[in-house]
This record gives sequence, structure tokens and C-alpha cells, in this order.
Amino acid sequence: MIVIVVQINVKPECTESFVNESQFMQNKSQKEPGCVGYQILRRIDNPDRFTFIETFESEEAISAHKETAHFKQWRANVYEMMASDRIAGQYNILE
Amino acid sequence: MIVIVVQINVKPECTESFVNESQFMQNKSQKEPGCVGYQILRRIDNPDRFTFIETFESEEAISAHKETAHFKQWRANVYEMMASDRIAGQYNILE
Repeated sequence: MIVIVVQINVKPECTESFVNESQFMQNKSQKEPGCVGYQILRRIDNPDRFTFIETFESEEAISAHKETAHFKQWRANVYEMMASDRIAGQYNILE
Repeated sequence: MIVIVVQINVKPECTESFVNESQFMQNKSQKEPGCVGYQILRRIDNPDRFTFIETFESEEAISAHKETAHFKQWRANVYEMMASDRIAGQYNILE
């Protein structure tokens, strides 16, 4: 199991569009066979900041996710909405 | 529901002790009535970096968690193990 944690800062004027695009992509991602969980978190004290917690079964499942139409569409559609580069890391879960 | 995301960098020589202390605290935290989930993630490309994903029912549940003996003990025991200040934020879950 691999968890990807992604931090994204969105331009204030874009947050509503970003949420719509991201929830559409989340919904599709959750249906991928290798996706165990896909959570979108929004910071309480700064609603322009988001953290995505994406749990996949394997490296192969992550590669497959990145090839999906919904991921590519999301990435293209939100690119201009980001206030800075997104920060991502891959993690193991301590059991 | 409130999710706390905490990023912690640990001194390399302390990671084993940090994992032991944190898993003990995680186990106790998961049994708190207001704790919905408590995940400890370890970065694959840098095993000195951890992200805690803590899900609580309410602000009250978070306050209660911070008053528990296991949290206070963990905080005291790992203080010297951290390579830098921990970074924490509180989030809502987008449904």
C-alpha cells in the first residue's frame, strides 16, 4: 500500500472551480480498481490550501491512475488555478 | 469531522525510538471515543520524515486527545528526537 500526500495552494479566485474539478476527479479515482482511498482535505484556517490523501495498492496502480483520462483532465484544468507548485510525497503506512 | 495533518522530521539516529513511541501512542489514540482514525505515514524516499493523519469527531475530541496521558508522554518523549519543529494544520474533509 502506498499513500501519496499532495499539498496544493490555490489562487483565491479559483477555489470554487478547483473544488468542482477535484471532486469530479476524486469520484472517478475512487472507482479505479487499485485505489483504496482518495480524500480531499481543505484547511480550516486557510481555505485556499488543500491536502489530498491518495491511497493506492501498488506502484502499478499509481501509474495506471496517472494515465486515466480523469487525472489528465484534472491536471490540465487546474494547472492555472494553483498559486504555487504542488508538493507531493509517497509514503508507507506504519502498521 | 476534523483531520489534523502533522509533518515531522526526525533525527536519523532516533527514527527507531520515534516509531516505537509513536506506534504506542497511535494504538492508545485509536481507542479514544472521539478518534475516528489515526494513521502514521513514513516517507519512502526519506524514512526520517513522517506524516500523521489524525481524524477526530470534533474540536472537543481533539482537546480531549491533547489531555490524555499517552499524548503527553509521547510529546515529552519524542521532543528531543525531532530534527525541526513539527508542522500541523487542521482540515475539513470535502465530501
